[in-house]
Amino acid sequence: MPTTTRVIGIDPGLTRCGVGVVDVRADRSAQLVYVGVVRSAPEQPIATRLALIAAGIREVLEAHSPDVLAVERVFSQQNRHSVMGTAQASGIALLLAAEAGIPAATHTPSEVKAAVTGYGAADKRQVQAMVQRVLRLDAPPTPADAADALALALCHAWRRPAGARETGGALTPAQKAWADAERLARR
Amino acid sequence: MPTTTRVIGIDPGLTRCGVGVVDVRADRSAQLVYVGVVRSAPEQPIATRLALIAAGIREVLEAHSPDVLAVERVFSQQNRHSVMGTAQASGIALLLAAEAGIPAATHTPSEVKAAVTGYGAADKRQVQAMVQRVLRLDAPPTPADAADALALALCHAWRRPAGARETGGALTPAQKAWADAERLARR
Repeated sequence: MPTTTRVIGIDPGLTRCGVGVVDVRADRSAQLVYVGVVRSAPEQPIATRLALIAAGIREVLEAHSPDVLAVERVFSQQNRHSVMGTAQASGIALLLAAEAGIPAATHTPSEVKAAVTGYGAADKRQVQAMVQRVLRLDAPPTPADAADALALALCHAWRRPAGARETGGALTPAQKAWADAERLARR
Repeated sequence: MPTTTRVIGIDPGLTRCGVGVVDVRADRSAQLVYVGVVRSAPEQPIATRLALIAAGIREVLEAHSPDVLAVERVFSQQNRHSVMGTAQASGIALLLAAEAGIPAATHTPSEVKAAVTGYGAADKRQVQAMVQRVLRLDAPPTPADAADALALALCHAWRRPAGARETGGALTPAQKAWADAERLARR
């Protein structure tokens, strides 16, 4: 198993699709590789919009060769107006993962928020602040879609492998830094 | 403008995705070119399922070079259980149209039913019966997804071009055949 996993996170959307790539080490420390937002204009035909989103994601996949793709899981209960476009963009992301030959996973917004802030109902600012701290960025990633994409990638990398439970003991330096950052972010 | 338009219709779905291709002449007469169903198994990962659907649609696009793609418009109010997968599959179809360089359109289920049966709330059997008659098939296309894909393609081809209203006068032989078929199907 490699000590570093490169994860691409996708916050799916038609108007703004967040794309973030992070390298995450076994000790949970993480480094920013890429972050950006792919955009398409609402007045364009839906097929054109999806093709723009696909081209943007493909470019990042080719440039950064992630090991795995994580995309937000979309529910029909969410924001009615845009949910179909969000679902379509998420389908595109999953297809591109399969076509790139890398595994793909979906995570719910509350899983992502809980993973990065410790609180499943955290707001956008808390997520942005935590992503900034964890990745040691000079400023919170903006727009929120970019931060959400990075949060998705971190959430995925930090899942505990099946059967691998923490067995207690002292925190590693990275775990301690993380715990500190979490505390700061909750102030 | 060509006298014949080749339309691919897609009834989006993960477990069964209907794909139909028809040639439709300016007089509304139509001929079957291809019909089939792309399947993926529910136990497969979602990314694999979407890739199978994409590969199946791409194969038909390459084999039959349609002029335009029509796909069912998905609403979040529809069948909750599978609506997200349906939306994702529809997004894949729209993406493939853009990538093949052909226009794409969406039609609601009631538009499709109204176009082929004259009744927006027609049931599956009526749609299958009308598609069979219009395309002069020996049996109704099955499964229903295949018939729906053909109905979508017919619906799209039969839209009146903007500004082109029927100006009255006698029915062409094809229009008469169509009107007869409609009457028969409603019995």
